[in-house]
Amino acid sequence: MTLRVAVIGATGRIGSEAVKAVEAAEDLELVAALGRDSKLETLVESGAEVAVELTHPDSVMRNLDFCLHNGIHVVTGTTGWNEERLAEVDRWLGEAPEVGLLIAPNFSIGAVLTMHFAQQAAKYFESVEVVELHHNRKADAPSGTATRTAQLIAAARDAAGLPRQFDPTTHALPGARGADVDGVPVHAVRLRGLLAHQEVLFGDTGETLTIRHDSLHHSCFMPGILLGVRKVGQTPGLTLGLEHFLDL
Amino acid sequence: MTLRVAVIGATGRIGSEAVKAVEAAEDLELVAALGRDSKLETLVESGAEVAVELTHPDSVMRNLDFCLHNGIHVVTGTTGWNEERLAEVDRWLGEAPEVGLLIAPNFSIGAVLTMHFAQQAAKYFESVEVVELHHNRKADAPSGTATRTAQLIAAARDAAGLPRQFDPTTHALPGARGADVDGVPVHAVRLRGLLAHQEVLFGDTGETLTIRHDSLHHSCFMPGILLGVRKVGQTPGLTLGLEHFLDL
Amino acid sequence: MTLRVAVIGATGRIGSEAVKAVEAAEDLELVAALGRDSKLETLVESGAEVAVELTHPDSVMRNLDFCLHNGIHVVTGTTGWNEERLAEVDRWLGEAPEVGLLIAPNFSIGAVLTMHFAQQAAKYFESVEVVELHHNRKADAPSGTATRTAQLIAAARDAAGLPRQFDPTTHALPGARGADVDGVPVHAVRLRGLLAHQEVLFGDTGETLTIRHDSLHHSCFMPGILLGVRKVGQTPGLTLGLEHFLDL
Amino acid sequence: MTLRVAVIGATGRIGSEAVKAVEAAEDLELVAALGRDSKLETLVESGAEVAVELTHPDSVMRNLDFCLHNGIHVVTGTTGWNEERLAEVDRWLGEAPEVGLLIAPNFSIGAVLTMHFAQQAAKYFESVEVVELHHNRKADAPSGTATRTAQLIAAARDAAGLPRQFDPTTHALPGARGADVDGVPVHAVRLRGLLAHQEVLFGDTGETLTIRHDSLHHSCFMPGILLGVRKVGQTPGLTLGLEHFLDL
Repeated sequence: MTLRVAVIGATGRIGSEAVKAVEAAEDLELVAALGRDSKLETLVESGAEVAVELTHPDSVMRNLDFCLHNGIHVVTGTTGWNEERLAEVDRWLGEAPEVGLLIAPNFSIGAVLTMHFAQQAAKYFESVEVVELHHNRKADAPSGTATRTAQLIAAARDAAGLPRQFDPTTHALPGARGADVDGVPVHAVRLRGLLAHQEVLFGDTGETLTIRHDSLHHSCFMPGILLGVRKVGQTPGLTLGLEHFLDL
Repeated sequence: MTLRVAVIGATGRIGSEAVKAVEAAEDLELVAALGRDSKLETLVESGAEVAVELTHPDSVMRNLDFCLHNGIHVVTGTTGWNEERLAEVDRWLGEAPEVGLLIAPNFSIGAVLTMHFAQQAAKYFESVEVVELHHNRKADAPSGTATRTAQLIAAARDAAGLPRQFDPTTHALPGARGADVDGVPVHAVRLRGLLAHQEVLFGDTGETLTIRHDSLHHSCFMPGILLGVRKVGQTPGLTLGLEHFLDL
Repeated sequence: MTLRVAVIGATGRIGSEAVKAVEAAEDLELVAALGRDSKLETLVESGAEVAVELTHPDSVMRNLDFCLHNGIHVVTGTTGWNEERLAEVDRWLGEAPEVGLLIAPNFSIGAVLTMHFAQQAAKYFESVEVVELHHNRKADAPSGTATRTAQLIAAARDAAGLPRQFDPTTHALPGARGADVDGVPVHAVRLRGLLAHQEVLFGDTGETLTIRHDSLHHSCFMPGILLGVRKVGQTPGLTLGLEHFLDL
Repeated sequence: MTLRVAVIGATGRIGSEAVKAVEAAEDLELVAALGRDSKLETLVESGAEVAVELTHPDSVMRNLDFCLHNGIHVVTGTTGWNEERLAEVDRWLGEAPEVGLLIAPNFSIGAVLTMHFAQQAAKYFESVEVVELHHNRKADAPSGTATRTAQLIAAARDAAGLPRQFDPTTHALPGARGADVDGVPVHAVRLRGLLAHQEVLFGDTGETLTIRHDSLHHSCFMPGILLGVRKVGQTPGLTLGLEHFLDL
């Protein structure tokens, strides 16, 4: 028995990858692929059990409203969430208690595992720094993922009672020691040819531990999206973050 | 209040590092450092609460017998364990129910975390290989740690119902694709100038995750030994492997 | 003044990238893009000064015959060369002494530099090994580039009078120490998610030097193709290998 | 026939390594090892042909004066050079035209090759950044070697007519994009457990090239010192920098 899946936002860069990924999965059946002008009723008519929603902050609420109230589980990677919006989808889920919704800021399993492992390792090492490396069209530095990773590491150190790490630097060129994110230095490299890469470097007496994640193609989100599709129906209510669907 | 610590095997390469590490730790007090000709009674006379045992398979049983029966907790990295020996120390621990013993094949926290993370990640990636890199005086290939890591990964894949990974190779020079350890290819690099290094490489659609451990100095075992010293007194009975003292 | 460039094989995977790259270069003008059914006369009619030939061993000779005899310089990445074919194009070049032809097995500047640097470094290090990493659809192991790199390193060691490197391994699982290419161990990793990557690792007392090349997209050949296009007209006769156009 | 070698500064950290390295080399004979209170006359009495000078800016001039005027070739790694001092040793060498002197700021062959390769690669890549990684007792950031490497890269780009590289960053935390050394971003990581490491990362369309140097032990200077010892006698006059003795 296959799971009946629809993709909303099927003509976008990630959405069109999702269409291909669902089609390629033996346990999934693509029953609808909605573009900008498609009608949401198609979801009901096609018998979709799960919808992958990859659109825009302007349209995500309308799409979720329709899906949740029609008993269709949703996996969404659309951004723009705030407390007000989360409260509203929570209310809708209260009206459809058997329906599941996964909102995930990052569907890369590698990125999610990197953050998880970094948190676990944080308390065992005196030193830790983050180096992220991206293509040279990226406007912000450091990346959101690197900032989030550093914050999680800093919180894990705090929780374990570790002191702020010692910075030996007394003479430095400005910027040499990176950006300070809650006491964790974060360095941002920008190179033509790269896509999205991150290293978390831990050090202590005589050894280092490095966790490195490389995204080489934007299809890297597909295994996480498919994992969400397979699990969201068994997880009623709101789930925030793919990590909750990983068995860690 | 400091913990009173003795080192047995204090003149060996790792033992002499342990002496320095205990001396440098503010919460520990070095009360005895036993070399080859020292008497075990010194341990009792010095009031040692915990002994770090770093000797040889020929002497470890005598040392444990003395310590456990005198109420001294032990952390040991000596090798040569088999079922018979483990049964005997278990019997001794039964006679001293408040005493703790930690037997650990590897005191490097980085190595232990690498294995733990590799097991956790194993089920989320289609592909996985191990590359270990050591100095060019090492006689065995792959290293024991790499073999063990590959076995743990293979077991985690099996437990998750993953198939054997696909090897696309149809034309190869002998050895190019590494050693097969339970279906996980393991490659051993030997270079003058290296010490002990290991990479676990995971890959799936569009992304890779790499966990790398570098031992740059044999003092890398000290944080793990000190962690054992601090925890073994609160953990009566036999503990096999430092990972059980990490809060993972 | 721009250079007038044609692409032969413009609908192939690399050829279509070449079309885009020529169009994007300010100093080049795309005057013709020939697919499978295009007529070679178009090259003359369009006034092409240089042709980029990216087709197939079955058609390359016909294309070169036409271009060279019509005074059009050629940059080709098509494979299938042997002594007989090289002798024939050499004869054609004798008939057109002002025309340049570049035949290059690899247009990636990073790959060419990696091989060049590896040769230069070879004589200064006691140890050297090669690790290549590719996607898991690659049928041969090690890669042609890795084999060629190892051969060049071995030749440079020989020329410097270095002995075969010492392999300390006495106990090994089959394959653990990689493939032996002229005395240089070569290890081939295959992972889903990778494209084409290579590391050359040198080691000696207390230090290592690593040269790593990562191809993240097949557009990586474009800078080398454009470099060839710009230089081939000033280099009459046959040039074998992009390295001769690099100022090393 | 072996070469007769003396070490001046034989009790220092690097000097004592040099003593061991000379003793271990089959083609060299250690004839004198001078500590702080040794007399320079020992050099003449021992028949030393080459002296390795590893002392202090306060004593190096006196040592060179003696050696050069007694026909002993010198390899020195002592720092503190300025134009005045260089002019003086140049005058002394004029008085001893057959004597060779090598002054080298860095005897690590890996570091010297890294700088050389970085200069060679510089003109072929749109993007370049430097990441250096050191132990957490280092007071300056970036390291002198990283700064020098970035300067050499910037000069090579200028000489090739390349523009300043494009920095896409419009929103950044202070320091995220590293220190600006002549237009090349340099990032300094500090971790307990590291020694001295440097990566030069080049990127262009679809590919990256990384040159990485790892110093794992301060014995890494020995191959370069021995190379200097073997070549300095055949190179009369002043040589500044080990790279001139490498056949690049």
